[in-house]
Amino acid sequence: MLPRELMARAVQLAERGLYTTMPNPRVGCVIADGDGRILGEGWHRRAGLPHAEIEALTDAGERSRGATVYVTLEPCSHSGRTGPCADALIEAGVAKVVYGMQDPNPAVGGQGLQRLRDAGIEVEGPLLEEQCRALNPGFIKRMALGLPLVRIKSAMSLDGRTAMASGESKWVTGPAARADVQRLRARSCAVVTGVETVRFDNPNLNVRADEMALELLAAESAAQMIMVQEVQPLRVIVDSRLRTPANAFILQGEAPTLICTTEGADNARRERLQAAGAEVLTLPAGAEGRVDLSALLAELVRRECNEVLIESGATLSGEFLYRGHVDELIVYMAPKLLGSTARPLFELPIKRMGSVLPVTITDMRAVGHDWRITATTDIER
Amino acid sequence: MLPRELMARAVQLAERGLYTTMPNPRVGCVIADGDGRILGEGWHRRAGLPHAEIEALTDAGERSRGATVYVTLEPCSHSGRTGPCADALIEAGVAKVVYGMQDPNPAVGGQGLQRLRDAGIEVEGPLLEEQCRALNPGFIKRMALGLPLVRIKSAMSLDGRTAMASGESKWVTGPAARADVQRLRARSCAVVTGVETVRFDNPNLNVRADEMALELLAAESAAQMIMVQEVQPLRVIVDSRLRTPANAFILQGEAPTLICTTEGADNARRERLQAAGAEVLTLPAGAEGRVDLSALLAELVRRECNEVLIESGATLSGEFLYRGHVDELIVYMAPKLLGSTARPLFELPIKRMGSVLPVTITDMRAVGHDWRITATTDIER
Repeated sequence: MLPRELMARAVQLAERGLYTTMPNPRVGCVIADGDGRILGEGWHRRAGLPHAEIEALTDAGERSRGATVYVTLEPCSHSGRTGPCADALIEAGVAKVVYGMQDPNPAVGGQGLQRLRDAGIEVEGPLLEEQCRALNPGFIKRMALGLPLVRIKSAMSLDGRTAMASGESKWVTGPAARADVQRLRARSCAVVTGVETVRFDNPNLNVRADEMALELLAAESAAQMIMVQEVQPLRVIVDSRLRTPANAFILQGEAPTLICTTEGADNARRERLQAAGAEVLTLPAGAEGRVDLSALLAELVRRECNEVLIESGATLSGEFLYRGHVDELIVYMAPKLLGSTARPLFELPIKRMGSVLPVTITDMRAVGHDWRITATTDIER
Repeated sequence: MLPRELMARAVQLAERGLYTTMPNPRVGCVIADGDGRILGEGWHRRAGLPHAEIEALTDAGERSRGATVYVTLEPCSHSGRTGPCADALIEAGVAKVVYGMQDPNPAVGGQGLQRLRDAGIEVEGPLLEEQCRALNPGFIKRMALGLPLVRIKSAMSLDGRTAMASGESKWVTGPAARADVQRLRARSCAVVTGVETVRFDNPNLNVRADEMALELLAAESAAQMIMVQEVQPLRVIVDSRLRTPANAFILQGEAPTLICTTEGADNARRERLQAAGAEVLTLPAGAEGRVDLSALLAELVRRECNEVLIESGATLSGEFLYRGHVDELIVYMAPKLLGSTARPLFELPIKRMGSVLPVTITDMRAVGHDWRITATTDIER
């Protein structure tokens, strides 16, 4: 195999960790001999378990000596929960390391590569950088900017509406789109919703691995399904006045729930929600006494959240957008017309054409009988 | 070439008439020998000019004798502006006729084929029927149901809005989408708009052949460009109270303009608009004193309109939809968010989920930096 084919294989291996490596990045690694024959493969499964390089070294065993390592992300030089991978590669006696992208943390980027070079190992890269970066958009943004990647998931009709004016909305999208949403949730570190959604739709917002249609995880699929089910995103409710009902579904189940409120929220309610298992956190108040969304995102970064999914109504989604916090929109479009009195996609009080929010549509595809539109915001940061 | 390849070639030829055969159908014809070698080709160019079969017979000349004819539509058996094609084929001594689809007019369908059989010619078909039907959706609907095919063209933002609440809308779509709209217009027999659009946007609604990006018409392109420019759709204004300004752009230019109004419209206005070159027609009034849209469509069928394009604001488009007159929606989606106070795509006063209009999205594709969504309505007729 050619070097780029071996790196493409490493990317493929990294993708197996899409739903389980959080807060770590998804990383894949291939060890090959001089003729491009694969000697060992590895990928990072889950925080606390070995990094991809260690998995691949273990797989290759003694054959690693003198071999070439293809790894999607620069090997770490710091001791985390596992030892530094750069040292392990040096110890194994590999001859060459080809990396996909440098460590996105500006404080440590390049150190792992330098340590390898200092040990006399040949280092090459970046190779297939775009594909390697695409594995970890949230991790990269958190490391580089100290912010999580924020993605809004929404569902609308062809004419841009989400529900009847009355709130009636038992239409939604089909089973293929619902499985797609499960996958979006599962790759996220946190799922954020508003108290109105909790009160009216009473969603669970957990990941149900059996509804994800994970045909892709062929090998080891049973073990992976269990892991995907275990690694649940943090569920977050934006609730400035603590109106979340103590018996809401979102407070049930194994996954943790964080309720973000503001100073002055009722103490009795706070205790009732804590007794129901929620963590209640007081954040600064922003516009109109609502939870300040910058403070919320800072808190999620403090908790090492890479990708954050907003699954809320038009008001909270609209505020995230309006304040420039959103990187990506995922809009499921159902083949229906809901009419002009129905509810809008986002509450965005734009008055003049000069203030419209430009986006770039990067993908549109059929998902069952619905269509999925992916768009990135063009907001300057 | 195989029979289906020869018929595919005939379909290709027929497509050259996409913008010019109205009110006739687009038809293509190939004459081949027993080994599938093409002896002659033809397509219908324009009403009053020879039918496709005659063009192909002329092209093949004496070689037609004993040959096989591939024609996308059953040859006509009636004398229109040209003689019946079935007779011309018999006279030319062809051995076999393969047809793409039968004549959609239930009163004459099969008669042309029968006349050929009676003359001892072998008849086969339908072949590539779906592709042959797709050439003439409007002609087929008019012949079969006595109604034109109605298509709404609209442009919206990602969140389903068309303009600011103030009416400000200098955003619209990009040049590729505008060229696409020109092609939609050019294939239509009539373009319908409302008086509000005339008053506020003052569109011309004519076909500008040089803006259509007609790369497809390689051969004979200069002659065809002139023909496309000459065959202008009828421009129709729905204007129950005759508020169209006499100096509106839509009343200018070569193409005819029909203003549909209701009984009781001001006589002085009527005369002023007639003096400005418009035809003013009184139609029955429907809901709220507005022009009855069924009567309007019946009038357009009387004028032999196959495909009708609605290019209007949300109110008139919404009424066409709400009354079940629409076959197809073409929505250009611009990569922008206009916000929740902006104007809706269609004025559709739907109150309950049970009344939403289901559609089938048949195509989505990038058109420049915009996206085009094609949907058919699922309304039972």
